[in-house]
Amino acid sequence: MKKVAIGIDIGGTNTAIGMVDDLGNVMVKGNIATPAHGDINRYIDDLSLAIRELINSVKLLNPDIAIQGIGIGAPNGNYYTGTIEYAPNLSFKGVVHLVSLLKAKFPELEAIALTNDANAAAIGEMIYGGAKGMQNFVMYTLGTGVGSGIVVNGDLVYGHDGFAGECGHTTLIPGGRVCGCTALGHLEAYCSAPGMKRTAFELMVKYNATDSLLADKSFNELDSKMIFDAAEQGDKVANEVFEMTGQWLGQGLADTVHHLSPEAIFLFGGPTGAGDYIFKPTKESMEQHLLPIFKNKIKILPSQLKAGDAAIVGASALVYKELEK
Amino acid sequence: MKKVAIGIDIGGTNTAIGMVDDLGNVMVKGNIATPAHGDINRYIDDLSLAIRELINSVKLLNPDIAIQGIGIGAPNGNYYTGTIEYAPNLSFKGVVHLVSLLKAKFPELEAIALTNDANAAAIGEMIYGGAKGMQNFVMYTLGTGVGSGIVVNGDLVYGHDGFAGECGHTTLIPGGRVCGCTALGHLEAYCSAPGMKRTAFELMVKYNATDSLLADKSFNELDSKMIFDAAEQGDKVANEVFEMTGQWLGQGLADTVHHLSPEAIFLFGGPTGAGDYIFKPTKESMEQHLLPIFKNKIKILPSQLKAGDAAIVGASALVYKELEK
Repeated sequence: MKKVAIGIDIGGTNTAIGMVDDLGNVMVKGNIATPAHGDINRYIDDLSLAIRELINSVKLLNPDIAIQGIGIGAPNGNYYTGTIEYAPNLSFKGVVHLVSLLKAKFPELEAIALTNDANAAAIGEMIYGGAKGMQNFVMYTLGTGVGSGIVVNGDLVYGHDGFAGECGHTTLIPGGRVCGCTALGHLEAYCSAPGMKRTAFELMVKYNATDSLLADKSFNELDSKMIFDAAEQGDKVANEVFEMTGQWLGQGLADTVHHLSPEAIFLFGGPTGAGDYIFKPTKESMEQHLLPIFKNKIKILPSQLKAGDAAIVGASALVYKELEK
Repeated sequence: MKKVAIGIDIGGTNTAIGMVDDLGNVMVKGNIATPAHGDINRYIDDLSLAIRELINSVKLLNPDIAIQGIGIGAPNGNYYTGTIEYAPNLSFKGVVHLVSLLKAKFPELEAIALTNDANAAAIGEMIYGGAKGMQNFVMYTLGTGVGSGIVVNGDLVYGHDGFAGECGHTTLIPGGRVCGCTALGHLEAYCSAPGMKRTAFELMVKYNATDSLLADKSFNELDSKMIFDAAEQGDKVANEVFEMTGQWLGQGLADTVHHLSPEAIFLFGGPTGAGDYIFKPTKESMEQHLLPIFKNKIKILPSQLKAGDAAIVGASALVYKELEK
């Protein structure tokens, strides 16, 4: 029998479902809309149907699969309670008991577990990716926001109430930029993809950089990929965006190192596609902020999860951690 | 048989040794000089002799004691290796194998373990103090420096190489005050006792505060107790020192909460004797920096360890964690 796990990634508009083999490859995947109507029971019906169809389609080609369980990554997903709590980007109100609703639909499955997206990515890295065999590491996910997942002694840290690993909301610059959460100066306001855009405009303002390759884009048009392309063409503003983002991110990673003394920190998400443009200044800045006992010890590594499938793959990895218990 | 453990606190000039009962009371204690000569073998001979004498003196009065082991708190103490590594304030050079040297002297004891002072304090809080029964909490020790100990799922976090919990060296103010470790803007440079003194002089400079009760003290004379006394007498500068220290510390604690989602953060050390002067602004600032999911959930509590004995008591608690394994 071939072991497989189902991974589900719940986003604001779309829910992706995939069957993942024990090497972390997505065998088949599907999609349903994450509803705008807020009716959780209808959503659970639709989701269960989609999962059953996925299972049947895989079994046609591979009758010998043994489904280990379902792992779910969702915004504000709480591992302890199996609930999604007050997620600002989802239409469900209050606390949604996702795991118990799914367990009622799939009583034959031993492991059904939920956590947030960044924690799922960290577990994915540990089960299938570059963190195999590591007991202490941290994952930073850079995208629209900045998430993180922390592993100590081989286990994900959930903390007292299930919400540990919100490193994107540590304070980098007291009184600085307004963060999506309304607090000031959080790391996410500087090191997310929108944070990089804000930095680009801040620099164009500073230099009155009418000759920058970024100067013809509106605030809503500019994205981190355009900044990368401009940096590769030698654009001064774009290059400085990466320098400053790395400076800030390195400061934040050093704070994480001083808390946790990890073996490595993995970076995941769009902006990390820029390679050395972002990794080099980040590493330099982190080293500059570290105590001597940590200097030149902590690896900063790109995630080994495949970009398109990472959320599904990470969520599916939850199943294997659950079965270990 | 009455269970007891030996706690040892190694400081720059003095090594304190105590016999601690299972309620965390120090039954008897002694002292030897921490040598300036750097000869580790002579030091181990002296230390072992002092421990034997302590044991004999206790046994005279309480013949029924069962010694569980020896716990040691020391600067740069590494739990994993049982070594003290490159401690700047000790005369021993390089790496000192303290635990194995002591094990050779006390082969009859099952548990001999070492960690740094702040980690020992955190374990002390968990075994004998206010953190009994807590699975996730953090201890901040405010003194000449700022140390910390992190407990996740009931275990101290040592990290990959044994040096986790250096929250005093997270960055509060990018490019700010020079820290003892030479980096800029670390929490320790603001929230330690000397950090408070620096703030007092910064404020006297700002206001040209010749009428402050602190204005007749030299930079080397002023200490955090004098600032507390002045605050109680209504001194404007002294009161603002506590406001600012709390503002900074709260920012740092929020970073810790965003990493770890603890049930509580305990504060220990001289400056915490000021009670509400420091706890109130710290709590307000922490709340201000937190994500909504953490607001009004995290307790900030004074340590329940007795100030004078805390280092010995904390070190002795290591023994019980060791025997659990």
